[in-house]
Amino acid sequence: MRTQDLNQLFWFPGLINFNSSECYYLVVMKAILVVADGMADRPLKELGGRTPLEAAETPALDEVARLGVCGIMDVVSPGRPPGSDVANLALLGYDPHDCYRGRGALEALGVGLEVREGDVAFRGNFATVDESGIVLDRRAGRIDGRIFEEELADLVLSSHPEVEVEVRPAIEHRVAIVLRGEGLSWKVGGSDPHEEGAPVRRVEPLDGSPEARRTAEIMNELLKVLRDRLRASPINKRRVEKGLKPANAIIVRGAGTLPKVTPFESLYGVRGACVAVNALVRGVCRSVGLKLFNVPGGTGGVDTDTIAKAQVVEGILQEYDFIYLHVKGTDSASHDRDLEAKIRMIEKIDAMIRHLLDHLNMEETYIAVTADHTTSLREGEHKGDPVPLAITGPEVRRDQVDAYSERACALGGLNRIRGLDLMPILMNLLDKMPIYGS
Amino acid sequence: MRTQDLNQLFWFPGLINFNSSECYYLVVMKAILVVADGMADRPLKELGGRTPLEAAETPALDEVARLGVCGIMDVVSPGRPPGSDVANLALLGYDPHDCYRGRGALEALGVGLEVREGDVAFRGNFATVDESGIVLDRRAGRIDGRIFEEELADLVLSSHPEVEVEVRPAIEHRVAIVLRGEGLSWKVGGSDPHEEGAPVRRVEPLDGSPEARRTAEIMNELLKVLRDRLRASPINKRRVEKGLKPANAIIVRGAGTLPKVTPFESLYGVRGACVAVNALVRGVCRSVGLKLFNVPGGTGGVDTDTIAKAQVVEGILQEYDFIYLHVKGTDSASHDRDLEAKIRMIEKIDAMIRHLLDHLNMEETYIAVTADHTTSLREGEHKGDPVPLAITGPEVRRDQVDAYSERACALGGLNRIRGLDLMPILMNLLDKMPIYGS
Repeated sequence: MRTQDLNQLFWFPGLINFNSSECYYLVVMKAILVVADGMADRPLKELGGRTPLEAAETPALDEVARLGVCGIMDVVSPGRPPGSDVANLALLGYDPHDCYRGRGALEALGVGLEVREGDVAFRGNFATVDESGIVLDRRAGRIDGRIFEEELADLVLSSHPEVEVEVRPAIEHRVAIVLRGEGLSWKVGGSDPHEEGAPVRRVEPLDGSPEARRTAEIMNELLKVLRDRLRASPINKRRVEKGLKPANAIIVRGAGTLPKVTPFESLYGVRGACVAVNALVRGVCRSVGLKLFNVPGGTGGVDTDTIAKAQVVEGILQEYDFIYLHVKGTDSASHDRDLEAKIRMIEKIDAMIRHLLDHLNMEETYIAVTADHTTSLREGEHKGDPVPLAITGPEVRRDQVDAYSERACALGGLNRIRGLDLMPILMNLLDKMPIYGS
Repeated sequence: MRTQDLNQLFWFPGLINFNSSECYYLVVMKAILVVADGMADRPLKELGGRTPLEAAETPALDEVARLGVCGIMDVVSPGRPPGSDVANLALLGYDPHDCYRGRGALEALGVGLEVREGDVAFRGNFATVDESGIVLDRRAGRIDGRIFEEELADLVLSSHPEVEVEVRPAIEHRVAIVLRGEGLSWKVGGSDPHEEGAPVRRVEPLDGSPEARRTAEIMNELLKVLRDRLRASPINKRRVEKGLKPANAIIVRGAGTLPKVTPFESLYGVRGACVAVNALVRGVCRSVGLKLFNVPGGTGGVDTDTIAKAQVVEGILQEYDFIYLHVKGTDSASHDRDLEAKIRMIEKIDAMIRHLLDHLNMEETYIAVTADHTTSLREGEHKGDPVPLAITGPEVRRDQVDAYSERACALGGLNRIRGLDLMPILMNLLDKMPIYGS
């Protein structure tokens, strides 16, 4: 128990246990929201009409459902497939219709760049581009871009020397770019043609504002500077000599600026943390003020160490009341249309949940398990079908659902809710929701 | 497979089946939305507390429920009885709070009149009115108004010669009127007193705008011109001689202008068609850009040929991806408080569903069955009780519901949704919903 809670004793709506005639203490409830990326699916022919969740062995997930209250959830709205940025904002209680301003700044935050109000950020790839500007490989052979430290340092634009530029390589071929200065706009397109064999695009303004025109000019100049530097790079010359694809350009997309949000702790009076490897999810969590934690052995793929994730949660639960625990592998397997990997990943998530159930004090902890969207394994794409949700913990109104799946949860006591409803429901269970009216 | 889909192969989110080493084809999923007008009801004493849907023999509807996912739906919002115009707009995914602008233009579109932006339209009746302006029969003995071709032609208003006028008789005593010109407003009342024995009303402006005042003046002049022409008509003179009620006036209501909508195909990239007889429903569908199809043997009443409707659907399904299939008879029977006819009509709808299930390729087709509102047989009026909904097709998350009724569907996997949610849910199943975010 933290000292500051003592001061709140007489108005703080937590549980008070009288242990002896002389002393008492305050139990601070905790909540863990487990978000299994793209875990929900549609019935699959190859599983005899079952979903991967219905086919996987999930005793721990089923236990959460059996001990908890279940439902289905439209993360944005019925039928609407959410992107990952929008989905994670909604699950954290932030209405994307109000606050969402593109993906770039969220990615940049996620790779550790500083993004300030007014900055405009992009995500991008190192790519292989031929002399005439045709994209030959959108990922330059999945090169690790961190080798280009020198090429990305001290970037100055001769026509716009007042604009600060930072370019930071992320995992593999990925990169985040931040522009800082007056009069920038995120209403600009990208240069990534999204297919190989097509020419690199010019960055174009998406509205008629002078800010968008100026930002597009700045980006086109920056991308030219980067291309010149990368072409001249001895690293690329050596790659070409070895018959490897040179990373001779950066192509960008997803311009964005900071979402307009009230920080999580100001909203609920709860200290929140994020345990995730995926850059975007880390960026979303950072944008709303959650503290980020790394996971040793976390990869963001199907080979990630889910038990290590549970152990990180265990370690920080003393200090944080809310933890957003995200696992990416189920989505990666879905996008790769790898059914076996999706089922295996679900079972690894089940093992993570088992670890949490076994190692946490479930008298003081709520665990909610959901997905950020349905990803159809058949198509490898996000879908608008609702996701399952189960919440277990001391004071939930347990229902009759005894299995965790898209269909089983649909018959539960939570019925059908929206993504924006989840955080208020959890914060209410933590006795942290402010009253409306009097 | 349609030719244009070939070009979309690499980004189009449909199914790709490899049939041989050399050829492949794309399965384009189809959806049929069956709307049984006013089919839902409240429990009736005379049925021992069952609803007409629960009392009818409905093996095909039950099969849709058994093979599908079920729920209940508030077409507008819980408890709110929707009018037919508003209900059909909502079911098509258009929020009536945003786009609804009265019934008149929808009726006019439905009888084949052209209605342009800015036009104001009314629906009306041929009526029998006495010398002092008292309405003796609101329907002039349900006269077929199409006999007054000459009386309705070349209408010119001497005080407003710049306003174009078109009057088109619809089924029986019904009529649609379109005014075209600058500075018109749909914010005007009607002249129909809605009861017999009451005087014809003057059309009054409903707001203080000069446009509403002017439109009311124009309508009052037009109705006088029509009355003069009808009084002088030899057809009416002959009717009086035969002891029949003369159709010596037109009384109007439901002023409206075009709803503000984005066409259906622009929203979803789906070609949609409407199979309906009822003028209003045809008008709503036409207003959002669905292609209208006639039904041989379709009457809009309880004597309609529902199998003919299914056959029309079967014939056009190759060319359209979404079909709005509307049956009016259940509502007519409810308004007439004719229980036997309502049950018989439900069974005719069941036969229509049977035909669809037997004749369509259900590997590639979604069928959703619902009602546009509850119509209470006891009162003969629209009610705000939710309507049942069942959706069957290849990738729905089938639930345990095995009967189609207001109560059985309430326990299904869709839980409770709103009318506006239905079209996104269907378009998501067709893989046509655009992603939100990235």
